[in-house]
Amino acid sequence: MNTVLPTLYYRADCPFCWKVRIALVELDIKYRSIETQLGEKHPDVQRLNPKGSVPVFVDGDTTIWESSVIIEYLLDGPRQSQLLPGTPENRSTARLLHSYSDSVVGPALRGLVFEKRAKPETDWNIETIQKSEQAWEQCQEQLAQWLGDKEYFCDQFSIAECALLARFGIAEFYDAQIPNQMQNLKRWYQNGRQRPSFQSTFPAAFT
Amino acid sequence: MNTVLPTLYYRADCPFCWKVRIALVELDIKYRSIETQLGEKHPDVQRLNPKGSVPVFVDGDTTIWESSVIIEYLLDGPRQSQLLPGTPENRSTARLLHSYSDSVVGPALRGLVFEKRAKPETDWNIETIQKSEQAWEQCQEQLAQWLGDKEYFCDQFSIAECALLARFGIAEFYDAQIPNQMQNLKRWYQNGRQRPSFQSTFPAAFT
Repeated sequence: MNTVLPTLYYRADCPFCWKVRIALVELDIKYRSIETQLGEKHPDVQRLNPKGSVPVFVDGDTTIWESSVIIEYLLDGPRQSQLLPGTPENRSTARLLHSYSDSVVGPALRGLVFEKRAKPETDWNIETIQKSEQAWEQCQEQLAQWLGDKEYFCDQFSIAECALLARFGIAEFYDAQIPNQMQNLKRWYQNGRQRPSFQSTFPAAFT
Repeated sequence: MNTVLPTLYYRADCPFCWKVRIALVELDIKYRSIETQLGEKHPDVQRLNPKGSVPVFVDGDTTIWESSVIIEYLLDGPRQSQLLPGTPENRSTARLLHSYSDSVVGPALRGLVFEKRAKPETDWNIETIQKSEQAWEQCQEQLAQWLGDKEYFCDQFSIAECALLARFGIAEFYDAQIPNQMQNLKRWYQNGRQRPSFQSTFPAAFT
């Protein structure tokens, strides 16, 4: 019965939605998804979320409209250990990286994504794109430092990967490559790209 | 021994810091505090936080530099029930309100706070202030609707109050009053103002 499944309203190439979708697959949670398009004002989303944006997650009487809160909700209970490390200290590291992805990496990439998504190449504002590329490279330097020679940013695949893999997937599509000298970050991303949770949620428009 | 206490770097009139300080008092956590000033680039903060801003919380080897992540860290364990409700559904509501305070109420108030804080009254941009006052009133309409006739936004004093009381405290100082028709919000704020956690963290500059 489809009606008992939780519902996710999402946009395929929205990094906040992609992060939640990766987490849902990793957690093996069955859900119904309703895709919206860029610029679309879906009436359900407008009604359910005072900010009017996706993702919105509806589970019975519970409506959640903030990607980080959706993730905390999915992990509230026995599933926690699947995407959060085993100690409060390491959980705070995973949450910090998740937050860094949302509040620093996202704004860094915004300039180049918005220019390239919205306009033909002849109309791109090159200065905006270069500024964004510089900010993205600074983020990657910081991330490469945090990653070191570890397989994941924390001691396991975590919400840090859910958030960051979506950002790196979008960056790759818009030709914002990982610098060659950051071999650890390249390795991390290549491994992440192979995961079923990434493959199965990859935006169709990116293929 | 002061050296074993966790340390909070903060600015007294920063709403993100104030929220954390209210939570620390509510949770009865002893800590050492290091006050910074608006515009100050404190060398510890620059070193500890890639964003360079307060609050920063240091507990042994763990450094956390995002207010919402600090709060989750403080509540990670037996203290959770002190500031988060008893079910996943209600916890998500508390987290949503916390997020709404950070990402909607904060930006709504920014215009009027920044104008009034930075300039003499003769130089205020009245249009900026009016736009901000309108956004703040819209937030309050939404909040009054969520509050209804309850004592707290959730079924207990929660992180929603920690976040929102700090915003209302700042709004009051900058003369952004609660409209008279929102009696439930007035009552909620008057009760919150009486709490020792609010009183003891009230910014000295606001008195």
